[in-house]
Amino acid sequence: MRAARLTAPGTLELVDVPVPTAGPGEVLLGVGAVGACHSDLHILDAPGGFPTPITLGHEIAGRVEALGPGVTGWTPGEAAAVYGIIGCGHCRACLRGLENQCRTVPVGGIGISRDGGLADYVVVPASHLLKIGDLEMTQAAPLTDAGLTPYHAIELSRPSLRPGTCCVVIGIGGLGHMAIRILAATTAVTVVAVDSNEEALALASRMGAQHTVRAGQDAVDQIRRIVGPPPDGADVVLDFVGVDSTLTLARSVVSAGGQLMLVGLGGGGLTLQTGAGPVPVPLETTARIPFWGTRAELQEVVALAQQGLVKAEVHAFPLTDVVEVYDKLRRGEIHGRAVLVP
Amino acid sequence: MRAARLTAPGTLELVDVPVPTAGPGEVLLGVGAVGACHSDLHILDAPGGFPTPITLGHEIAGRVEALGPGVTGWTPGEAAAVYGIIGCGHCRACLRGLENQCRTVPVGGIGISRDGGLADYVVVPASHLLKIGDLEMTQAAPLTDAGLTPYHAIELSRPSLRPGTCCVVIGIGGLGHMAIRILAATTAVTVVAVDSNEEALALASRMGAQHTVRAGQDAVDQIRRIVGPPPDGADVVLDFVGVDSTLTLARSVVSAGGQLMLVGLGGGGLTLQTGAGPVPVPLETTARIPFWGTRAELQEVVALAQQGLVKAEVHAFPLTDVVEVYDKLRRGEIHGRAVLVP
Amino acid sequence: MRAARLTAPGTLELVDVPVPTAGPGEVLLGVGAVGACHSDLHILDAPGGFPTPITLGHEIAGRVEALGPGVTGWTPGEAAAVYGIIGCGHCRACLRGLENQCRTVPVGGIGISRDGGLADYVVVPASHLLKIGDLEMTQAAPLTDAGLTPYHAIELSRPSLRPGTCCVVIGIGGLGHMAIRILAATTAVTVVAVDSNEEALALASRMGAQHTVRAGQDAVDQIRRIVGPPPDGADVVLDFVGVDSTLTLARSVVSAGGQLMLVGLGGGGLTLQTGAGPVPVPLETTARIPFWGTRAELQEVVALAQQGLVKAEVHAFPLTDVVEVYDKLRRGEIHGRAVLVP
Amino acid sequence: MRAARLTAPGTLELVDVPVPTAGPGEVLLGVGAVGACHSDLHILDAPGGFPTPITLGHEIAGRVEALGPGVTGWTPGEAAAVYGIIGCGHCRACLRGLENQCRTVPVGGIGISRDGGLADYVVVPASHLLKIGDLEMTQAAPLTDAGLTPYHAIELSRPSLRPGTCCVVIGIGGLGHMAIRILAATTAVTVVAVDSNEEALALASRMGAQHTVRAGQDAVDQIRRIVGPPPDGADVVLDFVGVDSTLTLARSVVSAGGQLMLVGLGGGGLTLQTGAGPVPVPLETTARIPFWGTRAELQEVVALAQQGLVKAEVHAFPLTDVVEVYDKLRRGEIHGRAVLVP
Repeated sequence: MRAARLTAPGTLELVDVPVPTAGPGEVLLGVGAVGACHSDLHILDAPGGFPTPITLGHEIAGRVEALGPGVTGWTPGEAAAVYGIIGCGHCRACLRGLENQCRTVPVGGIGISRDGGLADYVVVPASHLLKIGDLEMTQAAPLTDAGLTPYHAIELSRPSLRPGTCCVVIGIGGLGHMAIRILAATTAVTVVAVDSNEEALALASRMGAQHTVRAGQDAVDQIRRIVGPPPDGADVVLDFVGVDSTLTLARSVVSAGGQLMLVGLGGGGLTLQTGAGPVPVPLETTARIPFWGTRAELQEVVALAQQGLVKAEVHAFPLTDVVEVYDKLRRGEIHGRAVLVP
Repeated sequence: MRAARLTAPGTLELVDVPVPTAGPGEVLLGVGAVGACHSDLHILDAPGGFPTPITLGHEIAGRVEALGPGVTGWTPGEAAAVYGIIGCGHCRACLRGLENQCRTVPVGGIGISRDGGLADYVVVPASHLLKIGDLEMTQAAPLTDAGLTPYHAIELSRPSLRPGTCCVVIGIGGLGHMAIRILAATTAVTVVAVDSNEEALALASRMGAQHTVRAGQDAVDQIRRIVGPPPDGADVVLDFVGVDSTLTLARSVVSAGGQLMLVGLGGGGLTLQTGAGPVPVPLETTARIPFWGTRAELQEVVALAQQGLVKAEVHAFPLTDVVEVYDKLRRGEIHGRAVLVP
Repeated sequence: MRAARLTAPGTLELVDVPVPTAGPGEVLLGVGAVGACHSDLHILDAPGGFPTPITLGHEIAGRVEALGPGVTGWTPGEAAAVYGIIGCGHCRACLRGLENQCRTVPVGGIGISRDGGLADYVVVPASHLLKIGDLEMTQAAPLTDAGLTPYHAIELSRPSLRPGTCCVVIGIGGLGHMAIRILAATTAVTVVAVDSNEEALALASRMGAQHTVRAGQDAVDQIRRIVGPPPDGADVVLDFVGVDSTLTLARSVVSAGGQLMLVGLGGGGLTLQTGAGPVPVPLETTARIPFWGTRAELQEVVALAQQGLVKAEVHAFPLTDVVEVYDKLRRGEIHGRAVLVP
Repeated sequence: MRAARLTAPGTLELVDVPVPTAGPGEVLLGVGAVGACHSDLHILDAPGGFPTPITLGHEIAGRVEALGPGVTGWTPGEAAAVYGIIGCGHCRACLRGLENQCRTVPVGGIGISRDGGLADYVVVPASHLLKIGDLEMTQAAPLTDAGLTPYHAIELSRPSLRPGTCCVVIGIGGLGHMAIRILAATTAVTVVAVDSNEEALALASRMGAQHTVRAGQDAVDQIRRIVGPPPDGADVVLDFVGVDSTLTLARSVVSAGGQLMLVGLGGGGLTLQTGAGPVPVPLETTARIPFWGTRAELQEVVALAQQGLVKAEVHAFPLTDVVEVYDKLRRGEIHGRAVLVP
């Protein structure tokens, strides 16, 4: 079968490999669609931090092809989305269904530390499949990361997302526009979208943002006119960019007791300064770098999609274009989510 | 009456002032004891950031002397502790009893933005008094801050303080030793105490810490032997110092999905770094600078003290020694909590 | 001024009384609108259980007329809604803002245990007023009970109201139709509305219910086709009727681990049976009789109304019709909410 | 091997059966100890409600004997406790680790709907084993139900178990005495123990109860003297008996907004009555029949036992005595927990 593999640090190739076999408790999935994610570029470009060779692709939807020994509850042909994180299954986080906080296995998963979905077939533990009914494959695949990651950040902030409060969403790209849809579908919070790009802000409005603010010098002032002066502010700020300038904006508009979610891994730093003097992060405010999400949350994202409440902007490409698609992604030429179809 | 007043930035004087009068909804309290808190030094030493003249003292216990118009539920002679924060009372934080997160009134309160308890009498809103029964005045006073502040930090972390997990407590001073007592009384968590001082560590053991670790180069290794390797670690770290070295220790031993509570305002900074490279603060971990506590929490701290489960180490001085006591506090010559008795 | 008073058990009269005076911490409110609530009928018809004479009316909106001593933060002419419950203010429930669970004061409040709003003026504690901006008086008044009570029941159930789950709402009257609006505005849950009346079901659909079910013999089967077989079921059931037949329906369709909210005080009983044999209430399911709501929740209901997300169906009558309006209410001739305007 | 099997409704026999084989994802466990639980009597005495023949025994500790295909993370000889509930693994409850609320599989598990541990060997899914280190087998076995069930009920009530509140524990038998230990180890709540037996009350005191009350006519009055008059009361009541008289006691002493946990399946009924008239269950109080517990909770119970904070009173018998032991249990001649050792 065909597989897009990281054959050496920095090298992605579409090669021919044997079809894998499902072991005990595993399922062989015929891949229907795979999202091309920015974090794949991190893996691609990391100077040797990941095992090679490895098939990339962690945003996967497909159909059950064959069941390994001991698997029940699935029949060949059934459609499924893949939950990509594989925790240890027995630590205090995993036992609560929080595999994204596993206390034993460092960050990893399907398409990261074992072969992923950029191939005709992929093997996954049966426990990591979720039924998706007749959801379109190209829609289902991005839900598993581009949908799940903002959903998780919103879930973590949910106690603060009350009627009458504001949520600032910074960066209206692949994840940010999903975040606004999820907020609109599941809360009555007032959404303030921030981006440097007018088209992105127009998309934010269509997704349900009540206010849009152009990133730049007077963004803080514009947002403060909406959320009020300190110690008030936005109860929740979701930063999907994560560079120094967006993090500074985030802490400048969050309320005392608010929540700062640093979703975007742009390489910036947010400093909590203790002691006298100006307090950059307000007292009682929590800051966190959330990671992906949980299986239970993915089930809920799928439910939202099945109800038509969440829909990703996707662009489909054949698997044969895989190298070119990642080049485009690196050059910022992909808008919405690129999805590869074997 | 006598009052210890900040008469100008940097100047604390015991002066004579008229006895104040309780307005509508207020109570005149005869002061029984007042704790001398490090944050008073911040006020004293701040170059003009606070109103003058003002009577300091925000850790107050006393007896009801007179009731202002409209006050019910109190009788002269009754013993009370004072909750020091005065929020707006109508924002979404105050309506939930979270005056320490008030969205309207910047940080302030009794002895901070209005006259405090370092005097023979003090006026407080009746709503900010809590009944303390026959608790000793010198014990009750420190509960309102030295007891409440660690209790609040523990309350915020409580969902993570489960049997089988570890809590690292850094800095076994006035607040830190109370934290260990509160943890021992209300959880089954394993407590690891860290301090540079052997006497402080001995105190930690008496308070209930299972492990003590001398601060220094191999502290991380010692703690890691107890809490295991990353991504595991201490589920909660309470830092009562807050300088760069303790914050570095804190983030080096916390688990993925853990909680970092930056209680000590030592002037250090903790940076959450997004993106590739070494991740100083683990994924999913929350960081927060908690502030004081809530009235409901103070009621619970008082309950713990009444049950004999929490007891502060106090040293009592007459009010006439007030200037000297703060000098000693500045020079680090006070161990435990100094309490002034009018 | 005019006041509709319970002058003896069972007797409601519009009488002339002096305008009351605001004491310390109180406000004199010029009444703008007052909702006519079914629970007023309980008070009216109770054989002597309530103090007389007393002015009824606990769903109140109005404008500030005069401030008592010590009141700040309000100016004459400002519009306000009244939070009706008056707790002790110092028990562990009140300190958390849960006056509806006050551990000291039995059920009571404005228009119940002290003079209410069916009058030209009413005196209320300043702490019990919420700003409503330019919200219409006749809309604001019903929010304080007909809006707040379902909002509170929904808040209590919120952890179960996740995407992909179902909420069954029984009884689409004054409170039930508000519940559906609140669910539609703040969750992505699938709403199943149940009523014996076709018009009520049509209203439910307009409010946002995805399914409507006619009460009766096959209601359980119809709902089970939507929510699946036991131990699955509706994660939340809100019963706004509370007679034996609706409570039986409720427990027959709730899931294991679900939530039963007995909001309607129809006099029925729900029995949790322990031990072997058929288990009428599923294991792990919680049952509760919620009571009214909290000030923080009322603030959120007001926010929803200000955003246009919640709107009550109201019918306005002059205060002079008060006796007749309650007669109509008793005879079931009021649809939506009757509001009296002084 | 030997196995104590339900060969027909009502008939328990020690018979010889082949040693079972571990399938994919399963482990063959050499049984070390099995608790004799009252709920086994329900299974034994049920007129045909359970599959036969079946090996009973759902409170199991043992050592790994052999691994089925695909099992990792265990080595032969390792000691383990068994989590007995087997949920579907993919419903919204199971995905959160709440198999005791599984929405697909009706109540069942190891020793209930498939062969259990009253045998020399038992096969269990590897996912349902927890490491117990060097904990004694006869101590570990009862933790899995007699320890886990009260722990779960306490976990559900934990937000109400604050310093200064009371918890009433009714029935100081196998589960009740564990409940008191767990409360003493993990909270600062005041425990009031109720039983009709003086020895049981003495045991309660040793376990950490602050007050003991003899069941009977004036029990309500005695408890009310401790917890105060309505609407105050005990914030939590754990009823480990569940007959009408204990349920009446429970609802008579619980506070408004309190929690009623109906753990004991004695066949009594608790009715929530809506509407006017005396309200037997206070407003805002939740009632629930909790079921067993979760894997994460079992891990915490094991941690408590390893720290020496929880210890069951056990009486060990050889497996050959199994029929006699259950007869004794039925006749009420077992005090503490009987444990069978193969």
